[in-house]
Amino acid sequence: MPDIRVGIVGASGYTGVELLRLLLRHRGVSLELVTSESHAGRRVSDLHPQFKGMIDAKLEPAAAVATRKLDLVFLALPHGASMDFVARHGTRRFRVVDLSGDFRLGDPQRYRRWYKRTHAAPEALERAVFGLPEFFRDMIRGADLVANPGCYPTASILALYPLLRAGLVETNDLVIDAKSGVTGAGASPSGATHFPSVFGNFSAYGLGTHRHTPEIEDVLARAAGGPVTVQFTPHLLPIDRGILVTAYARARGNLTRERLHEVYAGAYHTERFVRQLEKPPRVKDVRGSNFCDVHVTWDRRTKRVLALAALDNLVKGAAGQAVQNLNVMCGLLEQTGLEQAPLSP
Amino acid sequence: MPDIRVGIVGASGYTGVELLRLLLRHRGVSLELVTSESHAGRRVSDLHPQFKGMIDAKLEPAAAVATRKLDLVFLALPHGASMDFVARHGTRRFRVVDLSGDFRLGDPQRYRRWYKRTHAAPEALERAVFGLPEFFRDMIRGADLVANPGCYPTASILALYPLLRAGLVETNDLVIDAKSGVTGAGASPSGATHFPSVFGNFSAYGLGTHRHTPEIEDVLARAAGGPVTVQFTPHLLPIDRGILVTAYARARGNLTRERLHEVYAGAYHTERFVRQLEKPPRVKDVRGSNFCDVHVTWDRRTKRVLALAALDNLVKGAAGQAVQNLNVMCGLLEQTGLEQAPLSP
Amino acid sequence: MPDIRVGIVGASGYTGVELLRLLLRHRGVSLELVTSESHAGRRVSDLHPQFKGMIDAKLEPAAAVATRKLDLVFLALPHGASMDFVARHGTRRFRVVDLSGDFRLGDPQRYRRWYKRTHAAPEALERAVFGLPEFFRDMIRGADLVANPGCYPTASILALYPLLRAGLVETNDLVIDAKSGVTGAGASPSGATHFPSVFGNFSAYGLGTHRHTPEIEDVLARAAGGPVTVQFTPHLLPIDRGILVTAYARARGNLTRERLHEVYAGAYHTERFVRQLEKPPRVKDVRGSNFCDVHVTWDRRTKRVLALAALDNLVKGAAGQAVQNLNVMCGLLEQTGLEQAPLSP
Amino acid sequence: MPDIRVGIVGASGYTGVELLRLLLRHRGVSLELVTSESHAGRRVSDLHPQFKGMIDAKLEPAAAVATRKLDLVFLALPHGASMDFVARHGTRRFRVVDLSGDFRLGDPQRYRRWYKRTHAAPEALERAVFGLPEFFRDMIRGADLVANPGCYPTASILALYPLLRAGLVETNDLVIDAKSGVTGAGASPSGATHFPSVFGNFSAYGLGTHRHTPEIEDVLARAAGGPVTVQFTPHLLPIDRGILVTAYARARGNLTRERLHEVYAGAYHTERFVRQLEKPPRVKDVRGSNFCDVHVTWDRRTKRVLALAALDNLVKGAAGQAVQNLNVMCGLLEQTGLEQAPLSP
Repeated sequence: MPDIRVGIVGASGYTGVELLRLLLRHRGVSLELVTSESHAGRRVSDLHPQFKGMIDAKLEPAAAVATRKLDLVFLALPHGASMDFVARHGTRRFRVVDLSGDFRLGDPQRYRRWYKRTHAAPEALERAVFGLPEFFRDMIRGADLVANPGCYPTASILALYPLLRAGLVETNDLVIDAKSGVTGAGASPSGATHFPSVFGNFSAYGLGTHRHTPEIEDVLARAAGGPVTVQFTPHLLPIDRGILVTAYARARGNLTRERLHEVYAGAYHTERFVRQLEKPPRVKDVRGSNFCDVHVTWDRRTKRVLALAALDNLVKGAAGQAVQNLNVMCGLLEQTGLEQAPLSP
Repeated sequence: MPDIRVGIVGASGYTGVELLRLLLRHRGVSLELVTSESHAGRRVSDLHPQFKGMIDAKLEPAAAVATRKLDLVFLALPHGASMDFVARHGTRRFRVVDLSGDFRLGDPQRYRRWYKRTHAAPEALERAVFGLPEFFRDMIRGADLVANPGCYPTASILALYPLLRAGLVETNDLVIDAKSGVTGAGASPSGATHFPSVFGNFSAYGLGTHRHTPEIEDVLARAAGGPVTVQFTPHLLPIDRGILVTAYARARGNLTRERLHEVYAGAYHTERFVRQLEKPPRVKDVRGSNFCDVHVTWDRRTKRVLALAALDNLVKGAAGQAVQNLNVMCGLLEQTGLEQAPLSP
Repeated sequence: MPDIRVGIVGASGYTGVELLRLLLRHRGVSLELVTSESHAGRRVSDLHPQFKGMIDAKLEPAAAVATRKLDLVFLALPHGASMDFVARHGTRRFRVVDLSGDFRLGDPQRYRRWYKRTHAAPEALERAVFGLPEFFRDMIRGADLVANPGCYPTASILALYPLLRAGLVETNDLVIDAKSGVTGAGASPSGATHFPSVFGNFSAYGLGTHRHTPEIEDVLARAAGGPVTVQFTPHLLPIDRGILVTAYARARGNLTRERLHEVYAGAYHTERFVRQLEKPPRVKDVRGSNFCDVHVTWDRRTKRVLALAALDNLVKGAAGQAVQNLNVMCGLLEQTGLEQAPLSP
Repeated sequence: MPDIRVGIVGASGYTGVELLRLLLRHRGVSLELVTSESHAGRRVSDLHPQFKGMIDAKLEPAAAVATRKLDLVFLALPHGASMDFVARHGTRRFRVVDLSGDFRLGDPQRYRRWYKRTHAAPEALERAVFGLPEFFRDMIRGADLVANPGCYPTASILALYPLLRAGLVETNDLVIDAKSGVTGAGASPSGATHFPSVFGNFSAYGLGTHRHTPEIEDVLARAAGGPVTVQFTPHLLPIDRGILVTAYARARGNLTRERLHEVYAGAYHTERFVRQLEKPPRVKDVRGSNFCDVHVTWDRRTKRVLALAALDNLVKGAAGQAVQNLNVMCGLLEQTGLEQAPLSP
């Protein structure tokens, strides 16, 4: 089978860098184009010295996609820039996996409500497939435009989907307390991500207003077959990469640990990248890998289910999942290029 | 007024060290005795080099309390050792502020259920006063034995007490998602607190089983005037000191942010150490200080109240609160020795 | 004695914040003015939430110094801005302790060579006294303008001064390998200080070109009574505060540990803030305090002396030393306002 | 070519874990045996949850080597245990790569001086080859017993070897200031590696006495063709993995940057794992990879050469180098199993 010709549009940010890291080890892909508007002309390894001796390519402007034969393009662009790219270049000449939030909400009105702007490519938005292979593999297979899920939604949905699909919990009493490493905030320096501000610190942000909320609710509603409301609270962890989600749900009736394990095993035992654990997951046990570790338990005293999920926000929460989507879209083995073990300790 | 003669029993652990740090700057106290069984005979500053040039005292065995005139003794001992100390020495010759969990649950049966052992000083247990000055100042004033609250309970109770006292939320739908720095686990090395295990890591532990749960429920029940059930989940933060509690409660009816602020201002505007903030608190803004920063908000979309609290687990969560209790017990200004500004950045 | 009326010019950066923290606990000083050009009109505690409930003052523009009666002004300004301030306001109406690098090199030519610009107040530069009380206390006492030493120079000089003064080592074979926490780079966000760039990372910078080099050489030359050349290499430590200097010197003849200890004890046994240790110092043992911990040893095998020093770059390396200078200048006890114990753990 | 049959003896420590991580992705090797005395009978993934779903093998006692056909055994044992293993099992039935310090010093007397005990397998010691492929590839190829270098020595030697071989610097004026992450101290908890002791901290240790000193001197002496003395000072960095060495040497005559670059390029331009950089290396740019990043510069002002090297202490400083040695010994491409990009950020 000939190599799949791939481009990365936007390689100065963290998700672009992580795509580079993973595609370097991906048999079955040839990297034809790597772009960065602000650094066009420089070598990848000048900008990202970790790749010295590994990637010699020069960064090009995004407009170069028009001049190259490409089968698939990853958009690792800021929110807003992705929909402009799709509005300009379409999804006919190449298929697109978009890592921004631009194509996740499925509906222009909903997009405008949470993102406070008008969508630039509304019909593409309606056509986009939500790229969570564990639940939407069949639709991803034939998609032209895949909206790669956000990092928080990936962890939140993998934690809760089986529970809601099985109808075991109330749909209006879900609390998702989420904690993310700082790479989730991107590569641009700011006061909030200045080292002395984060080191030894910890806090919540975006109470009740984070844009990942509707993304989580939309997908869980599909699982539940009806509307779902979540209380989603993100926190900034003083680490570089990793997300832990602690989710709380009210059981509809009596439950047992065995029943819960069964439901989750049913959802995940054939999944390569979701590992069901007997104890609470730790973010370091998935660092650098595409795994999402999940643990579910039942507190008899309070009648509440606790579902926890840990993943690396740059891998299963972004670039790794994007590669997994490429594999699904192109008929490759789903784990191709994603087989490295977590870096722990 | 003559100095209050004070002893610290158990000065090798972190809460003992923090008592030393605070009492060094406390006008009104003379430190008569500092004990450590395992290090008796060594100088404090040999064991804790940060005190070199500041404390010349030698560590003595705990039995030395019998030979000294003391007005008040801080017990900074492991759980179990405190009740043995009280069983042996009583609380007649000196008043006691105990920083362990031994005297917090008020009732021997309840103690046995959560701590899995029989209490060694049951009548003292029933007499002990819960040492949270913001709500129990009057009882602390005359107490012989004060049970200094746990670090998690202090943050959780300060976050939720006003809400429950005002009857604004359901008492059986409370979720407390708590995150603590590693000093909360004590000074003894273990696999779980080995630097490479914690660095870059994050995880939950003790799901549904943590001993701070009944302590929180007991005190909140006093606020609510009836039983309260909480879902309490602790997590280990990769920092040295600091706790953040994110608490979720279901509102009983419609609420407004203004009403909430009023209720919290009513509880805290005369309190020196509880600061009500307009935005989510950060643990570094209280580092090294006796402050507890509290923020409360209302999510109209979900009808849920979010109450957050940040404190330094070794200060307001342990030694600082113990000093505050001493001040209350001895009729000193409550902030004596506790006026240092947080160390940030 | 009436309070000394003090102003802090430049309170948005880290050294300004640290001055606020220390002066809050300083008996003998009244804080008359706190300025910030960019944040004038806001409350100190809005900008720095750690001070909520402690400082109610509003930030003013620096020009307000002309309207206030002040005995002493701390300049916590960026390099360049301090000399402009002195050029405009002089040092007659109030004495000045400058925390920038503008007045440390003593000579306009030398300043231009290392700072690559012309000095704006050359005669003030020549009059300025180097504010290291341990060695220049007498000159500081009567000074109008004190150049507070840099953080690296303070640690380097305290490590090596006694050695050079005693003539025990060669003056042209000195290696200073220095490591600093990130607050040393200031409060302005940049790519190099973005949390994910620093976390889990470590590197050297400014090889052979750092501006603290001539400052160290100048002062050590005074100790040696002749020119001194140092190889100074700074590194960025992934912590918020703390400097460790590991200095290497070639012994002139045979030495003993005893002789070395004697020489250092001679220099420091009456000093409140320099602690001579029997083992290598750790930065956390001085965190938040004005201590500089020093250790010296002799390697018989290599004929080399190792002198190590640890301090908190924001305290003894900046604001604490500035307060110490104020105390010397104003005839107060040198430790006034500087007596807090290190925050460890 | 049939797979090389490999055993890992000692898989509970960090170097054993890292061998597992790397060998998982190594085409050309079959892992026949993984041992741990203390955890025999448990699954690898029970002990090390990061491998769940990747390694199903059970841990066995080391004695099982006698029952298995093995081509090569990695000894990831504590110092002392390796020589006992070799004394018992020899190196005839399988070749050995030892990751401890037991076979590095080449001579029983020297071993006894630095390790304070008698060597248990002295003739094996004399036969062992020092496993630094960049300089001893030819000897490694045919060796039965390879002493994998220490982490500090690997960085120090790669930094300085070309300089000494070219005769550009004095051999008795070398200062090596080295900084290592905490995994270098092993997986056993201790007071010195307890999270709150290391977090926000930094210090030197083992001044003048570290056992890596003779290892460095021996190898550099081979480069220089005569005795070499180094001043080696290790420091503990508050990170999990990574070493940075900053080495200082006195030039024999005048030098230029160009000459230095030439000398290093001559040594390394054909080396896959040593990258010569134009600027100071950062440990995060090599995290998780087998790279050693090297930078050399010349300070005209002081006539000193600065040579810096960064590596991951568990990869190029231990397990990665061991795999590289296996590849050399078995005639595989040297980068087999070692091609993953660094994990940054």
